[in-house]
Amino acid sequence: MINYFKSSCIRLVPSINRLHSHVTQNFREFSRFCGDQEPESWKSMEGLIRCQANNVPLSPISFLERSAMAYMNRTSLVYGSVKYTWSQTHERCVKLASALTQLGIARGDVVATLSPNVPAIYELHFAVPMAGAVLCTLNSRYDSTMVSVLLRHSEAKIIFVDYELLEIARGALDILANEDIKPPMIVLIPKYDCSSSTSLNLNTYEYENLLETGQYGFEIRRPKSEWDPISLNYTSGTTSRPKGVVYSHRGAYLNSLATVFLHGMGSMPTFLWTVPMFHCNGWCLTWGVAAQGGTNICLRKVSPKGIFDNIARHNVTHMAVAPTVLNMIVHSSVGDQKPLPHKVEVSTGGSPPPPQILQKMEELGFGVTHLYGLTETYGPGTYTPWIPEWDSLPLEDRSKLHARQGLQHLGLEKVDCRDPVSMKSVPADGKTMGEIMLRGNTVMSGYFKDLKATEEAFKGGWFHSGDLAVKHPDGCIEVKDRLKDIIISGGENICTVEVETVLYSHPAIYEAAVVGRPDDHWGQTPCAFVKLKEGFHVDAQEIIKFCRDNLPHYMAPRTVIFEDLPRTATGKIQKFILREKAAALGSLT
Amino acid sequence: MINYFKSSCIRLVPSINRLHSHVTQNFREFSRFCGDQEPESWKSMEGLIRCQANNVPLSPISFLERSAMAYMNRTSLVYGSVKYTWSQTHERCVKLASALTQLGIARGDVVATLSPNVPAIYELHFAVPMAGAVLCTLNSRYDSTMVSVLLRHSEAKIIFVDYELLEIARGALDILANEDIKPPMIVLIPKYDCSSSTSLNLNTYEYENLLETGQYGFEIRRPKSEWDPISLNYTSGTTSRPKGVVYSHRGAYLNSLATVFLHGMGSMPTFLWTVPMFHCNGWCLTWGVAAQGGTNICLRKVSPKGIFDNIARHNVTHMAVAPTVLNMIVHSSVGDQKPLPHKVEVSTGGSPPPPQILQKMEELGFGVTHLYGLTETYGPGTYTPWIPEWDSLPLEDRSKLHARQGLQHLGLEKVDCRDPVSMKSVPADGKTMGEIMLRGNTVMSGYFKDLKATEEAFKGGWFHSGDLAVKHPDGCIEVKDRLKDIIISGGENICTVEVETVLYSHPAIYEAAVVGRPDDHWGQTPCAFVKLKEGFHVDAQEIIKFCRDNLPHYMAPRTVIFEDLPRTATGKIQKFILREKAAALGSLT
Repeated sequence: MINYFKSSCIRLVPSINRLHSHVTQNFREFSRFCGDQEPESWKSMEGLIRCQANNVPLSPISFLERSAMAYMNRTSLVYGSVKYTWSQTHERCVKLASALTQLGIARGDVVATLSPNVPAIYELHFAVPMAGAVLCTLNSRYDSTMVSVLLRHSEAKIIFVDYELLEIARGALDILANEDIKPPMIVLIPKYDCSSSTSLNLNTYEYENLLETGQYGFEIRRPKSEWDPISLNYTSGTTSRPKGVVYSHRGAYLNSLATVFLHGMGSMPTFLWTVPMFHCNGWCLTWGVAAQGGTNICLRKVSPKGIFDNIARHNVTHMAVAPTVLNMIVHSSVGDQKPLPHKVEVSTGGSPPPPQILQKMEELGFGVTHLYGLTETYGPGTYTPWIPEWDSLPLEDRSKLHARQGLQHLGLEKVDCRDPVSMKSVPADGKTMGEIMLRGNTVMSGYFKDLKATEEAFKGGWFHSGDLAVKHPDGCIEVKDRLKDIIISGGENICTVEVETVLYSHPAIYEAAVVGRPDDHWGQTPCAFVKLKEGFHVDAQEIIKFCRDNLPHYMAPRTVIFEDLPRTATGKIQKFILREKAAALGSLT
Repeated sequence: MINYFKSSCIRLVPSINRLHSHVTQNFREFSRFCGDQEPESWKSMEGLIRCQANNVPLSPISFLERSAMAYMNRTSLVYGSVKYTWSQTHERCVKLASALTQLGIARGDVVATLSPNVPAIYELHFAVPMAGAVLCTLNSRYDSTMVSVLLRHSEAKIIFVDYELLEIARGALDILANEDIKPPMIVLIPKYDCSSSTSLNLNTYEYENLLETGQYGFEIRRPKSEWDPISLNYTSGTTSRPKGVVYSHRGAYLNSLATVFLHGMGSMPTFLWTVPMFHCNGWCLTWGVAAQGGTNICLRKVSPKGIFDNIARHNVTHMAVAPTVLNMIVHSSVGDQKPLPHKVEVSTGGSPPPPQILQKMEELGFGVTHLYGLTETYGPGTYTPWIPEWDSLPLEDRSKLHARQGLQHLGLEKVDCRDPVSMKSVPADGKTMGEIMLRGNTVMSGYFKDLKATEEAFKGGWFHSGDLAVKHPDGCIEVKDRLKDIIISGGENICTVEVETVLYSHPAIYEAAVVGRPDDHWGQTPCAFVKLKEGFHVDAQEIIKFCRDNLPHYMAPRTVIFEDLPRTATGKIQKFILREKAAALGSLT
């Protein structure tokens, strides 16, 4: 896995270097492709009609309605001692939708949440669309300021808040009040399994009480068009310019099915919620599990013990995790581990599982699938469909195959690596880098209130991911770096992912991230931030030497800083913070 | 299956009885729901764009393109010693599409086939849509007259004909020539594995030669809209009014995925083609197997020995069969049977598997799923999702559950039993009958060149199946009778009116009526009740021969009974009395 990084033959298409400035420039030559893609050619055959009988807007709402019949008495959701069937979940969601409309929620209104993976947030994934509204699940680790910014930007009318996060939400509302902005109503999601003791003020409702005001006979508000928005997902943008990614009912329907296929989920899977539902609507598996009449095992907090306990107790078949959780599982104490009842399929996204993690996961009885995607692609967009013949390959070869981001899943039309200026595909030689571009029905509708950013993202009729990758001869893509993370040192491009992979292979290193440190002579030099495993001691010189032994010298870090890495709520390392720290160090030469 | 007709507890909603006249009346109060169902409400959120990056017409063509990469070197199709990989199948289909355009096939043109399940008909399921054209797979049991009628109606420009059916096709072309209609070109599908010795005339091409004229670099003609027609499937309409059911790319895409889900097909299944691909495009599994990168095992003729041999040789995982084939398997000689390598999932449609058949199939190692659908619903539309807890029920109870037509699959929005006049749902009491009505994206676009029939079929915004059923308390439907008097024999629909028309054309026959006679092997066989003109004398054999000379053989009566026909006061023949008489005769085979 490591040796190929020694290869100096990774070529960049010429215009990548010009791109840093390009992407931030105003986009002038943009041509709108925005014409309705549905000419009436279906009328060309005489005798045909398009009507309610044969044209129903695609929507994940249909999954719940069907499962309420097909899997009526099967368990839909478990959370501690809370347990519902699919017919109960359906009833609760309809009543909640009814209650929302009674509170004045109109078609297209935004309803926000601030909550970990408790039953309420699952139910809101159906109830809010059933009220014709748009679900905006805020990251539960945001502070009051960030929450206030996103409430203002989204114009949310209601926010559902977990009892542990009530003070954060109230802080956000205070900020809005100070700005003379009408704050949203708060609906408190109390601690399950005990009567609420939280004091509620006038503008605050309690979840179960609100739900009970709704009518099961309520006629839900179906989307008028499958292009209607179903959710609004804020990515980690800056506070001054939030990026609110809009999903449509159509895209959510198609990505849910594609994600179910990708996970190899048969009928009635049992899914353990270790990935936050606020993240790309749980990679669309909130809706996907309903499509297959599965059982959702909700978890407030993720811990290795909790994972093993829940797998054993509920016969979990599938889970999806951030790379940090893979790390947690693999490094968990033997006392926390339990034998698995059967092979458990785990998907992971964000970064490829390193060989030693993969091997350990397999030893524990997990099957690992590596996904790639962005908030803008409804979460999962690509993976490497696993060929049975590969099972017998040596670990190193399997790791290389797992490390690739692969091909579009069944719901996406195409993934490609292209020169972002000429828009030409790069050769499929495993060497030439291009920007990952994606096209298909599971690409976002756009950035809410930011047409310019939307136009930039869709330039040339492809979604521009901002990730750099090579394309292998079999068409599979492999990420090399974020466009903005790439380091240019002495005119050479350094893929930080490659340097990090070498760092991770060092036995003492628990986690690592590399950014560019400004340099008067070289432009930039690589700077590594490293956290060591407990009980290990190595110094910077040893780490630098290790990298020089395993990489072209110009790629080896010149600086090593030992500290905990800052991460986002979804487990992504916040490189912009590290870049600021590296910049503060000043030039090395 | 027969006994339930005797049950006295089945209630009919009052208006069912009025329906026979109703459905044949001109439909006056029809309101077109035909307005574009896509208001621009997606624009209500500022900043969104619909363009090539996020809006690609749904089409099964995408399945092949993806599998050509994801499953590149995996076997796509096997037929005797013929074997292709997915990348080869993709290449062959693109070349064939290219060759079709070189022959002058334009967007929207119809390309017909007359063939059993050989590789060519599989390839044409992709090649024809890739040329922008519409695939019309004719029943390979049709005679020259029927083929000529459908070629005239469909205006097919080319017909691909299996070498064994060449004379039927040439006969059809002669009929067209006599009517001064320009006949389609013939492309001969020769016997595989041997050089063709059939003499070709000027207007006839040979399949492989034609394919070789195509270019792999050809830019395929993608649908301009997902509502573009992809195929035209003739049901058993009368020769005077053929019913050509039009499928769209959108519906085909969605039904393919739903059918894959319904069959529980994981990645890379091996599918044995025992259901004709000419029947609803092989229940959309032609496209569905491509979606999952599976292997298609083609069979020219279906026999128990062939089924067992192929299962063992190719590790078949899934198959789909007409009820007669279930019968064949169960009654096959022990010498023809082979132990299965694993459980083989078999789906069957048309009529529910009787308990003894179900039991025997399970003993042999098959898992059976019972589907319901019509040509108008792209084949499979409903089934009973099987709950694991049911496995432990006694055979009789399981048979009852298997016998039900169940619920809509994942691609269909809703199945319901309704009063066809008031359009009200019947109570879910397992007793009150209503007409099965379906709604969703996997309902046909309409009947080609027959707007009136389309409007009638979609009256009230639901597709009217013409089948009568009850709805059980859990929402599952169960078919009780056919609204019309269709006979199902060996999986084929026989319209009694057509047979009666031929009978009436016999010089000795005064009046005639045809009903189904229950049959252990065929399900039903046509039974004719005939009253001769005074002074005429013919016997049953002569009448049967007359019908066989004027109809496809399977449509000809197997039984002829001479007697006066029972009529109502207003002169209508009472078919239910004749059905009882035919039932009393018992099985013919």
